[in-house]
Amino acid sequence: MTPEQIQAGIVGGAPTVQRRAMAKAITLLESTRPDHRQQADALLTGLLPRTGGAFRLGISGVPGVGKSTFIEALGLYLIGQGHRVAVLAVDPSSSVSGGSILGDKTRMEHLSVHEKAYIRPSPSSGTLGGVAEKTREAMLVCEAAGYDVVIVETVGVGQSETAVHGMTDMFCLLQLPNAGDDLQAIKKGVMELADLVVINKADIDPDAATRARAQITSSLRLLGLHGNPDRSQGRPKSDQAPTGASDPHAVGEREGTQDLHHDQQIWHPQVIQISALHGQGVDTFWTAVTEFKRLQTAHGRLAARRQQQARAWMWERIESGLKQRFHEHPQVREKLDLFTRQVQAGELAASTAARQLLELFD
Amino acid sequence: MTPEQIQAGIVGGAPTVQRRAMAKAITLLESTRPDHRQQADALLTGLLPRTGGAFRLGISGVPGVGKSTFIEALGLYLIGQGHRVAVLAVDPSSSVSGGSILGDKTRMEHLSVHEKAYIRPSPSSGTLGGVAEKTREAMLVCEAAGYDVVIVETVGVGQSETAVHGMTDMFCLLQLPNAGDDLQAIKKGVMELADLVVINKADIDPDAATRARAQITSSLRLLGLHGNPDRSQGRPKSDQAPTGASDPHAVGEREGTQDLHHDQQIWHPQVIQISALHGQGVDTFWTAVTEFKRLQTAHGRLAARRQQQARAWMWERIESGLKQRFHEHPQVREKLDLFTRQVQAGELAASTAARQLLELFD
Repeated sequence: MTPEQIQAGIVGGAPTVQRRAMAKAITLLESTRPDHRQQADALLTGLLPRTGGAFRLGISGVPGVGKSTFIEALGLYLIGQGHRVAVLAVDPSSSVSGGSILGDKTRMEHLSVHEKAYIRPSPSSGTLGGVAEKTREAMLVCEAAGYDVVIVETVGVGQSETAVHGMTDMFCLLQLPNAGDDLQAIKKGVMELADLVVINKADIDPDAATRARAQITSSLRLLGLHGNPDRSQGRPKSDQAPTGASDPHAVGEREGTQDLHHDQQIWHPQVIQISALHGQGVDTFWTAVTEFKRLQTAHGRLAARRQQQARAWMWERIESGLKQRFHEHPQVREKLDLFTRQVQAGELAASTAARQLLELFD
Repeated sequence: MTPEQIQAGIVGGAPTVQRRAMAKAITLLESTRPDHRQQADALLTGLLPRTGGAFRLGISGVPGVGKSTFIEALGLYLIGQGHRVAVLAVDPSSSVSGGSILGDKTRMEHLSVHEKAYIRPSPSSGTLGGVAEKTREAMLVCEAAGYDVVIVETVGVGQSETAVHGMTDMFCLLQLPNAGDDLQAIKKGVMELADLVVINKADIDPDAATRARAQITSSLRLLGLHGNPDRSQGRPKSDQAPTGASDPHAVGEREGTQDLHHDQQIWHPQVIQISALHGQGVDTFWTAVTEFKRLQTAHGRLAARRQQQARAWMWERIESGLKQRFHEHPQVREKLDLFTRQVQAGELAASTAARQLLELFD
C-alpha cells in the first residue's frame, strides 16, 4: 500500500480495508527508518484535517482494579449508543517485558471482536516520550477513521499518567474501595490529574466504597481540586455530611454534584461508585463524562486544553531531541560522566558544570 | 576586592569583613557579564569544599500566613541554641515588581540586625530557573561562611515551591487554621512536596486548627504521603481517632507520630500546630526538624537527596541553555511562530513540527 492508498483506506475505505489501512499507518508511524518517517509525516499532515472529532478519554488504574472489565463494559455500552470506540494503551514497560499485556485482545473478549471497536496494544519504543508520541499519532489515525470515542489506558508506570493526561480531554482514575486504607494505591501527584475518580468493585464492600468515596472527596476538596460552595460563608466543610444522598451504598450514585450549584459553569472533579463486572454504574459514568464534555465545550476549555496539549507535545519532542543531540555530541560525551561524578561528589557546582558542558556543545 | 580576597574573607574573615565578602561574592554571582561569570565560577569551585555543612530548610506559605514572624522566631531560637542562620528567598515575581518584598529586612526586625544572622532578599533575574540558580549559589556562599542553618523561603509564585524543594533538605509548608475551608490556600501539587505541614496562628481558632490538622493528616495519608500502621491488618483508617492526643487543642502538639511505630526508620510527613507570634511551638517545630534530620542522615537519604538535587540542577541548567540556543537559532526563529500557530490550529502534527524544527537547528 502506498501512503496515498493508506490515507484513502483510512478515510473512506470499507470496514476491512479501513482496518488494514489503519494497521499499515500505525506500523509506518512506528517505524524508525528515516524514509518511513518522512512518509509517516506526510500521511499525518494529510489526515490531520479529519482528526479531532473524537472525545479523548484517559483511564488509569493499577493492575487488579478492573480496568479491562470496565473498558469492555464501557465500550460495549457506547457501541450500543451508536458510537465507534478505539482503545489505545500507554505502557512504557512493554518494551522491557518484550510485549504489552495492555491491549491484549483476550482481555476484552467481546469488545475486541466487535466491528465497531478498534483495540491496539501499547507501542514498545522504549522511552515514555517515544511511546506517548506513537500513541498520540495512533489516536489521530483512529479519529481520521471516524472513531468518535478514543480511550487511552495506562497502568501508571513511571510518569505515564501525566503523558495520558497530556493527550486526553478527560482523565479518569480507577480506584478500589479500600484505596483509603491501602496507601500504595495512589501514587504521588496522580490524584491531582483526575477529572473523575471511579471506585470500581463497589458491590464487594459497599461500606468501604462509601468510606473511600467520602475520603477521596474530602481530600480533593482540601487540596483545592474540588469546588467549595461554603467558602463565602466561611463554614467548615467538615460540618457537612459528605455523602449527600439518600442511600449511601447505592452503586452508580455520584458524590460531588452538590457543589455544582456554586458555579455551574466549572467542572469540579467528582467521585463515583461503579461495579463494572455487573455492568452497574457505566451509565452514571457516561453521564458524568457527557456533563464534563458539555461544560468544557460550552466555554471553550476543551479546545484550549487541546491547543495547550499540542504546544506542550511539540516542546516535549523538541526538548527530547535537543537532549539527545547533547548526549551524542563528541566533546560533551567525553566530559559528561566526569562532570556528573564531580557534581555529585560536591567538587564542581552544578551550574558551573552546566555552563562548561554547554560551551563544549557550541 | 579580588576573587581571592573575597574567598579568603568568606572563609576566614572577621565578622564585618566576612559580611562584606559575602555581599561581594553574591553580587559577582548575580552578574551577567561574561568575565564576572568566569570569576564567579572560579570562586564557586574554590568555596565548594567548604560547603554542604548547613541544614537546608525550605519554608513556603502564602502571604498572610505569618512566614516572616515564624522565620524571625525560629531564627532567634536557633541563634539562642548556638546556630548561625542565613535566610534566603526565591521570589521570581520580584523582577516584575522591581524589588522583592521577601527578604526585606524590616520584616524581621530583630533577626536582621543580629550578627549571627544573614538575610538576603530574592535575586531578581527574571526566570524562575535564573532566580533559583542565584539562590542556590548564595546558599553555597553562606555555607562556606559557616552558617549552619540556611532557610530558603518562598511565597509560592508559579513553580517556586518545586524550585525550593529542589534545593533544600526539608520542605515545610505553612498553613492557616482555616486551610481546609478555604480551598485556594493549597495549590495543586504543593502538598505532596511537604515533609512537614505547620499550622500557624493556631491560637486564634484552636477548633479550626485541630480540624485542619486532622483533615490534612487524613489527606496526606490517603494520598500515600503518610505512613499507615494498619495496612497489614486491613483496618480502615477512618475508624481511628485522628487526633491521638489528650488535649486536641494543645498548641505545639504533633499529629502523625503514632505512625512511627510502624516503621521507625522512615520519616512520614507530619502536621504540627504553632503560634509564631507568641513564640509557641517553635521548639516543637525544631524537634521535628531534628528528628527528620536524624532519620535522613542515619540512612544516607540526606546525602542521596543532595546528590539527586545536584544532578537535577545541572540538567535543569543544561536544558534551559539548550532551549535558549534553540530559540536564538536564526532558521528556527524564522519558522517557530508559524509552526506553533499551525500546530495549535491543527494543521500540522506537533511531532512533525518538532522534527522539522530540529532539522533546521542542525
